[in-house]
Amino acid sequence: VAILVAADFDAAGWALWCRLLREALPDERLLRADDPSDAAAFSAEAAAIDVAVVANPKPGSLHGLPRLRFVQSLWAGVDRLLAPAAGLLPDDVLLARMVDPAMNAAMAETALWAVLGLHRGLLQCVHRQRDAVWADPLPLRRADEVRVAVLGAGQMGRTVAARLVQQGYRVGAWRRGAAVDATVDAPGAATSVDLHHGADGLATLLAGAHIVVSLLPLTPATDGLLDARCLAGLPRGACVVNLGRGAHVVDADLLAALDCGQLRHAVLDVFNVEPLPPSHRYWSHPAVTVLPHIAAPTDPRSAVGVVAANIARYRAGHAPLHLVDRTRGY
Amino acid sequence: VAILVAADFDAAGWALWCRLLREALPDERLLRADDPSDAAAFSAEAAAIDVAVVANPKPGSLHGLPRLRFVQSLWAGVDRLLAPAAGLLPDDVLLARMVDPAMNAAMAETALWAVLGLHRGLLQCVHRQRDAVWADPLPLRRADEVRVAVLGAGQMGRTVAARLVQQGYRVGAWRRGAAVDATVDAPGAATSVDLHHGADGLATLLAGAHIVVSLLPLTPATDGLLDARCLAGLPRGACVVNLGRGAHVVDADLLAALDCGQLRHAVLDVFNVEPLPPSHRYWSHPAVTVLPHIAAPTDPRSAVGVVAANIARYRAGHAPLHLVDRTRGY
Repeated sequence: VAILVAADFDAAGWALWCRLLREALPDERLLRADDPSDAAAFSAEAAAIDVAVVANPKPGSLHGLPRLRFVQSLWAGVDRLLAPAAGLLPDDVLLARMVDPAMNAAMAETALWAVLGLHRGLLQCVHRQRDAVWADPLPLRRADEVRVAVLGAGQMGRTVAARLVQQGYRVGAWRRGAAVDATVDAPGAATSVDLHHGADGLATLLAGAHIVVSLLPLTPATDGLLDARCLAGLPRGACVVNLGRGAHVVDADLLAALDCGQLRHAVLDVFNVEPLPPSHRYWSHPAVTVLPHIAAPTDPRSAVGVVAANIARYRAGHAPLHLVDRTRGY
Repeated sequence: VAILVAADFDAAGWALWCRLLREALPDERLLRADDPSDAAAFSAEAAAIDVAVVANPKPGSLHGLPRLRFVQSLWAGVDRLLAPAAGLLPDDVLLARMVDPAMNAAMAETALWAVLGLHRGLLQCVHRQRDAVWADPLPLRRADEVRVAVLGAGQMGRTVAARLVQQGYRVGAWRRGAAVDATVDAPGAATSVDLHHGADGLATLLAGAHIVVSLLPLTPATDGLLDARCLAGLPRGACVVNLGRGAHVVDADLLAALDCGQLRHAVLDVFNVEPLPPSHRYWSHPAVTVLPHIAAPTDPRSAVGVVAANIARYRAGHAPLHLVDRTRGY
């Protein structure tokens, strides 16, 4: 048997990942999908490949692998792997998302930075710096007077909510489906997080939110969720932080809400087209902070351990962890 | 007896503070130093004033008050009150700083925002946004790989250090004099903070710091502390966050260190001249974030309670809390 590595790494990325994967999987045969020097070996051994480790694999790179049964993603989001256009995965192949505490922590750092910057008016100062404006301060609000709505209550949403509670914010979280557990535990915090679900729960949560942080997976049910109707349901002057996927946002609706003052500011890490084209209005909008999809990068140093452990489970006949439910889409 | 309120508030500030102070001190006679309508009352009652509540009082506004014995500052920093040029305070007058947990929390929020933004390269993205640059990510570092040096280990320094430890950063703190206690407790954190002191302790701490956060009081001993020699003692590519006083920084030395790459970025909330003049290089420097002295604003809603409690202590014959040691300067 053999493991295929199919990714869009640059040369340095390939070198790093291959070294770390070989160290973490010393007894496995690893094949690179797009390494010319491996082309002969690859053709000869395609029939032996039963596991693939993928990060934005090229279309077709998982075809012609009759024994493929398990695909481990190196990224947390699997929407591109499941897109019908990609046609990547036969139905009988198991697919696991990357779930790594180091990524959850990184996401929480980015969310906390955005919330602090919006709450305290710090981000707006950076944007106005180009005009040499010594700005008047925002009206004072303590953290316990700021309500933050976290959309998505999985591993990342829970970590983000807990860190925000730790800083004193009033935090509610939303997930689409009903939750098994009613609250998100917030270590070290006196309060916990109210969990809402369904369309009604979303409307209730948004109606009271000063800041919305989206960490949702992209599925047919969440595509375009942040549209004019949703944004109009926020209190006037609210802020939006999108750390999920660009397609959650209807860009024209978000810009209209910013232009008319319904929204005070948006922090966006993900976009419908990435890299964000230089001509896009987001770049020059004074009420938009653009981040280049860096909210929660996969850290190869810890992620290879997650990959190795999940492959070991598969080899031992156990179900891999963090399998994607294809009907849900995440 | 009567209490003088001497401040540089605008009209809205006077209205808010006077309303809150009257509510918090219902049995006290309050006089506004610069209210024309109070001028007659003021002259008649100057001899009765034994307490003053001050926020940037005009030079001379504390003169001619023979019974004045206790001055409560509404701001945490008292360097302007003690400056020889101000000539404000007779030697036998007690002076108390404002110490309010809400201000400590606000300072911790600003420090955390700056550290997160520097650690994760987020602040640099905002600065490069004007050029529509989809930036390459910084090399990955987890919070536990980032060493933060907090200068100043008083109420604010301790709160900042604890919040940084909570987020996983490696934190050391420095105070000029030897400390009574050896560590700063960090609630909810597995580790605590190493406390350094003296010139040798500062050099040791800075030599290993990726990010320096200054929360020092301004005294003759800390004036100009962040000079070329000090900045050269940091590892190459370190960052500086100044939330103390502008005079801690030698501006020409900081700019030189940024220009040659010794420093990667500086976040500055305080300046030698405030508001920062529009022509100052800090405004346009791509590696400087300028904040308009908003790191830890006094919140009148909680500060009046601190004022009232300290005046009640004084009236009851007890020493007020948080008295300034004039020989130390804070």
